[in-house]
Order: sequence, then structure tokens, then C-alpha cells
Amino acid sequence: MVTVNRNYLKLPGSYLFSDIARKVNDFKQKNPNMNIIRLGIGDVTQPIAPAIIKTLHESVDEMANESTFKGYAPDLGYEFLRKTIADKDYLSRGTTVYADEIFVSDGAKSDCSAIQEIFGIENKIAVCDPVYPVYVDSNVMAGRTGDYNAEKGIYENVIYMPCTEENNFVPDFPKEKPDLIYLCYPNNPTGGAITKESLQAWVDHAVKIGAIILFDAAYEAYICDDEIPHSIYECEGARECAIEFRSFSKNAGFTGLRLGFTVIPKELKCDGVSLHSLWARRHSTRYNGAPYIIQKAGEAVYSNEGQKQIKEQISCYMKNAKYIKNGLLDAGFKVYGGENAPYLWLKTPNNIKSWDFFDLLLNKAGVVGTPGVGFGKNGEGYFRLTAFGTLENSIEAIKRIKEL
Amino acid sequence: MVTVNRNYLKLPGSYLFSDIARKVNDFKQKNPNMNIIRLGIGDVTQPIAPAIIKTLHESVDEMANESTFKGYAPDLGYEFLRKTIADKDYLSRGTTVYADEIFVSDGAKSDCSAIQEIFGIENKIAVCDPVYPVYVDSNVMAGRTGDYNAEKGIYENVIYMPCTEENNFVPDFPKEKPDLIYLCYPNNPTGGAITKESLQAWVDHAVKIGAIILFDAAYEAYICDDEIPHSIYECEGARECAIEFRSFSKNAGFTGLRLGFTVIPKELKCDGVSLHSLWARRHSTRYNGAPYIIQKAGEAVYSNEGQKQIKEQISCYMKNAKYIKNGLLDAGFKVYGGENAPYLWLKTPNNIKSWDFFDLLLNKAGVVGTPGVGFGKNGEGYFRLTAFGTLENSIEAIKRIKEL
Repeated sequence: MVTVNRNYLKLPGSYLFSDIARKVNDFKQKNPNMNIIRLGIGDVTQPIAPAIIKTLHESVDEMANESTFKGYAPDLGYEFLRKTIADKDYLSRGTTVYADEIFVSDGAKSDCSAIQEIFGIENKIAVCDPVYPVYVDSNVMAGRTGDYNAEKGIYENVIYMPCTEENNFVPDFPKEKPDLIYLCYPNNPTGGAITKESLQAWVDHAVKIGAIILFDAAYEAYICDDEIPHSIYECEGARECAIEFRSFSKNAGFTGLRLGFTVIPKELKCDGVSLHSLWARRHSTRYNGAPYIIQKAGEAVYSNEGQKQIKEQISCYMKNAKYIKNGLLDAGFKVYGGENAPYLWLKTPNNIKSWDFFDLLLNKAGVVGTPGVGFGKNGEGYFRLTAFGTLENSIEAIKRIKEL
Repeated sequence: MVTVNRNYLKLPGSYLFSDIARKVNDFKQKNPNMNIIRLGIGDVTQPIAPAIIKTLHESVDEMANESTFKGYAPDLGYEFLRKTIADKDYLSRGTTVYADEIFVSDGAKSDCSAIQEIFGIENKIAVCDPVYPVYVDSNVMAGRTGDYNAEKGIYENVIYMPCTEENNFVPDFPKEKPDLIYLCYPNNPTGGAITKESLQAWVDHAVKIGAIILFDAAYEAYICDDEIPHSIYECEGARECAIEFRSFSKNAGFTGLRLGFTVIPKELKCDGVSLHSLWARRHSTRYNGAPYIIQKAGEAVYSNEGQKQIKEQISCYMKNAKYIKNGLLDAGFKVYGGENAPYLWLKTPNNIKSWDFFDLLLNKAGVVGTPGVGFGKNGEGYFRLTAFGTLENSIEAIKRIKEL
């Protein structure tokens, strides 16, 4: 008798973004002429920058000729990309990460969800609340959590670390000792950033209690404040306790091209076993590398032209963020984030429930956002808007919200 | 105390293709002027066909404009590709597989290794011996096997099904009852094919014992004989017991572009649970879709021009296969495969060990193949050559082998 992985059955049936899509479709059918403004899902809207497009065309042409055709990529990524990443993202900023510590992949979501596989099932995870659901769901599927408690909105056997106004959306050390700590800064969904001092305190704490920090830095390109760390490896001791995830999705608009990477320092060990070697084994056994043309596109992101162009794109998104934030403040909302991240985290007026505010905004203003409670129980009473729309849409959204 | 996934430590330290690469590098350093002919790894050598290149350029241009830019792909793949696959690979051939039963991915290796995640850990797997190592290794990592017995060359708690000259490289039903049965036809590494009758018998057997067949059809494009099934769904009852994996790597040279898909019929259930819904949940939680431009390239494979061009490529490889096979037969070898698959499986002369024959061929002829024992103990005394080289190289390889 074949059995299924019954851990999957612990996952609640419907998924946050499917619920949103359903509600939006219903509204659209009833209001076919309404111009709906979507500031819900964190997808970019600006096209791929010209310098990257040029490289894509060139590398497509390489695939057309026998002498330059590329078959299977090296399992861990092309040297040209790994070296460029190490130089430009780390070494030239004074951060110690070497090319052979970088594993190129098809995106941070794949890596964030797969990393738990190299750890024992008995490890206890700690996550922020609210949180990007992938960290939790991948551990649920693996059997590292208990059942879902629908009443409390939590999984048993998971340490939830509240991120609230009181702690400025950076969690306190949990009372119970975790093994694997997921942190994401700049943060999705709260748009919060972490100071160097706070991140160093987390690193020190992880070293002290013998935990590993899984650090998702997918939004580091949005950091505007010089004091905010771009990488956890800027902290002393992080090479002995942290794994970092990076993405090309949000800094260069690769959501539809798929490219990311994971950093595992060579000295990072658990129980005498190198995590770098375990991850290398997983990569080579279960993955065949990101497409050559996409890896070339990734290299082009770091060219002078590429850097100039993507910085302009990010600056556009951050202008939206500023406009939305100021508009909401003007309208009397309490708003967080949007200064070092493309997300705005607003408190719903009169403490109404997240989903009620979602319905209100959709039905009265035709604006789609994401109910905070979809990211965890501490997200109740909050609402996420993204800065990834156009300026025009951002202005229109604020106009409509003000008229509510 | 963080623990690692100790199942990884069961995997023998070195990997078949790394061992080969090391030996080839050593030889190259000692013989810098020797033109080494590589017929080892199953990577293609012909460039991407013109019709596909054209589409790649067009879709890259779409990514350059705001109005045609594509962000996140639908989790399960773009409708245009899923529909085309269903029509061209299945429905138009009289095989029942619908578009919404197709899950687009970055390749068959990813899917073949991930599929085990949706099943319970207590399921017993059966694999052919010799076998593509990914099926076994992914189950080792998940903890579904016992320790590796180096003396016997097998993992405990795995059912190995010998594929030998006697059974024409199609395994007999194992005595012990398996839950998950991995089959790959046309076969890697033996180059063997399975008749409709034999595959139907396997489907009937699976239905009878309540097992699931995981059918890897990555090499179906190489089938020349009309009697050989291209899909397991050509067999009656397969929709109730089989999952099928397909790849664009070998039919259209996408080893460096990365595209594949998995078919899970909607009626396929275990213990009352739909496997389709479990896999959909895994896909959407742990994956972000294949790049838009690669999915467009996949669609172009099915265009009239695309089909014509890739059939010419396959025909070139099969000419190599024929040349190599006849040459080896001429030279007195016993050779299998190469008629419906791009692999030749030859018996080593005088029953010498696979690795000894590898060394002989490398050192005396400068030809690289793959030792059969690298695929399992029943591969001992065999050797795999691929037809993925150029005709020129295939001719030169045979010339050198004949001069041995």
C-alpha cells in the first residue's frame, strides 16, 4: 500500500494569494469597467534593463552555434557569475564571501524552501510572525512541525517570534531555544529593516546557543540607509552561524527570468559536518543548474551599465514607496516600512480586521493589497501594499484611498 | 544543538562523474596533445535549432518592454505550453493526458528527484540495476533507504531489479512487493527499449499490487520503432498507477536551457489523496516556475519548423549510434541499445571490469566512456558510450577502438 506524505495534509487547503485572486476575479466580473490597481503580490512591473537584454540576445546567439553552444552548466553555477557576485556583492564591500561559497540557483524561493533538507528532522525552527509563508510551509511538508491549530493560527512545534510596533518589527530572542532561525531583512511583509547592531546581537545569540541563522536578503538592493547591513556576513561571527539567500528578482526584475544564489561559508559546520558539502551534494544530485543565458544575464546585472540601469529602476520603486507612505500618513494612517524596502505595512483604521480592510479597499476603491493576517496572527490588523506598481497607479491608489 | 540530515552521510563520498572527470584531467595533463573524445556524459553537442533561437530572441524582446514584460510565471507553467504539450505529445497521438495534468519545470532531474517528497517515508522503492543514480540518491537523502553496503554495492531496504542480457534489460517483477517503482524507457544507461506488451504487463502488475510507477520518458524522442510506446499512458490503466517525466534536454538540446515536465493524471490517488493536488502544492510552495523565455522556447519546439529541425538533430545522433554500434560489432564486441536510444551498452571484452576497461580506453585510445558499474552492480562488465558526439568524433573513436 503506497502512502502519501501526510505532512502535506496539515497545510490549510487554500493559499493566501489564491484567496486574493478569487476575490479580485469576483469583483472584476461584477465591475468590468473598474480599473483595478494591484499592489498585492510582490511582483515587479518594470521591464528588464537594456544592458541585460543585450547580454540575453548575445548569449542566445551563443546557443545557436556549435562552437559556442553550452550544454549542462556546472552544478554550482558558472565561475564567471560566482566570481562576479563574490567580488561585487561582498569582497569589494569589505565582506568576506568567496566565489566557491556561492551556489547559483533558479531563485531564493527554491533555496529558502530546500535548505531545511540538509538538516535533521528533529531541529526546531523559529520564524518571525508575520512571515513569508515559504519558510514555514517547507518545514511543514518535511514533517518538522506539528499540526496546524486553526484557532490560534499557528503550527505546533514552531517558535513564532512576534514582530510588532513595540519591537520595531525586529523580534526579541525567543524564550524557547531554536535550532534554525529564519530572518528576512529588509523584511517581507513588514518592510522593516534591521540595524547592524541588532543583527550583530542576533549573530552573537546564535553563536551562543549553537543555532543557525537562515538569512533571506532578497530585498537588500532597496536599502537606502548607509547604516543598514546588506549582508549578514558584515557581522562578526556570521561565517560560523549563518547561511544567506539572495535573489535577482527584486533588484533586477528577474521574477520571470529566475536567478538567485545561496552563500554557505566553508567553515560553517554542524556536528562536525560541513554544511557547504551537504548543500553541494544536494545541488549536484537534485538540480541541473540555472540556464546559461540567465546566468549571463545575471553577470550583466553587475556591469557598469547594468548597475546604473537597475539603480534607476529601484529608485522609481522607492519613489512610489515614498509617495504611498506620505499619502497614507496624510490620510491619517499609521504606516511602517517603505524606507529600506519596497513594502508598506499599514495599520488598519479603527483596528478593523485585515480581511475586512481588504474587502473595503477592493470594493470601495478598486485597490488590491494583502491582508496582514495572511502572513501570521501578528499580522492581524495590518495590511501590506507594495511599491512595485507604476507611479501613476500609486498616485491613483492614494487618491482613491483618501476618498474612502 | 543543530543536527544535520544524517541520511546524506550514507552517500559514498565521490560521485561517478567526478571520478571520471578526475581521471580524464590527469590523463590530459600527462598527454596535453592528445585529442580526447568524450562519449561519457549524456550531454548534447548540437546547438539549439534556428526556430527555437528565433523565438528566444522574440521573447527576450518581450521582456524589454513594459507592455509585454512577464514577471512571475504561473506556478504550474504557462497555459500556452501546457496546452501545446497535451495536444502534440499526447492527445494527437491518441493518448489521454490533459493540459491541466502537466506541470512544467526546469527539468526531469529536478522532478525525478523531488517526486518522492509527496510520498510517505515508509514506502519501499524498486529500481532497475543498472540505474540512473538520481532515483536512488534522492531517496537516500530523504531517509527512505538503509545504509550503503559497499561490499555488495547496494543500499539496504531498496529493491534492485536486475536488467541483464537474459531479460533483454527489462526487469522481471521483483519477489518483494515495492510501493514506488522507477522505470526509465528508452533506458539510461543500457539503451534498451520496452515493448508495449511488457510495459502493459508492468502497468497491470502495478495496479494489481497497488504500486505507483514513476516513469522517466526523457529519451522518448529517440524511439525509431513504431511498436515502442512513447508514453506509459498508452497502456490501459496507467492513469490509475503512473506518473510520467519528460525532458526537453535530449529531444531539443535544452541541457543548458533547462525545461521539462511531469504528468500526474487527476484520477491518480493514494489512500484517498490526489497526488495531483499534492504535487501542485509542492510546485507552488517550493518553486517559482521556469523562465518565460524558456517556456516560449519549449513551445517553439512543437512548431512545424521546430519539429523538422529537432528531428534532423536526433537523426544525426542516431546515425552516430548506428555507426558506433556497427563499428563495435565489427570489432567483435557484444553491444546493446543504440536503436531506440542514444546510448550504447557494450560488454567489456574478456569480462574485464568496467573501470579497467575505462582506463584502457582512456589511456590507449583517448576515448572517454562511462563504466557500467557506476550505475549499479549489474552494470559491472559493461560500458556506456553515448551517441551525442559528432559523427567525426564517433568515426575517430571507432577507428581508435579497433586499433586497440
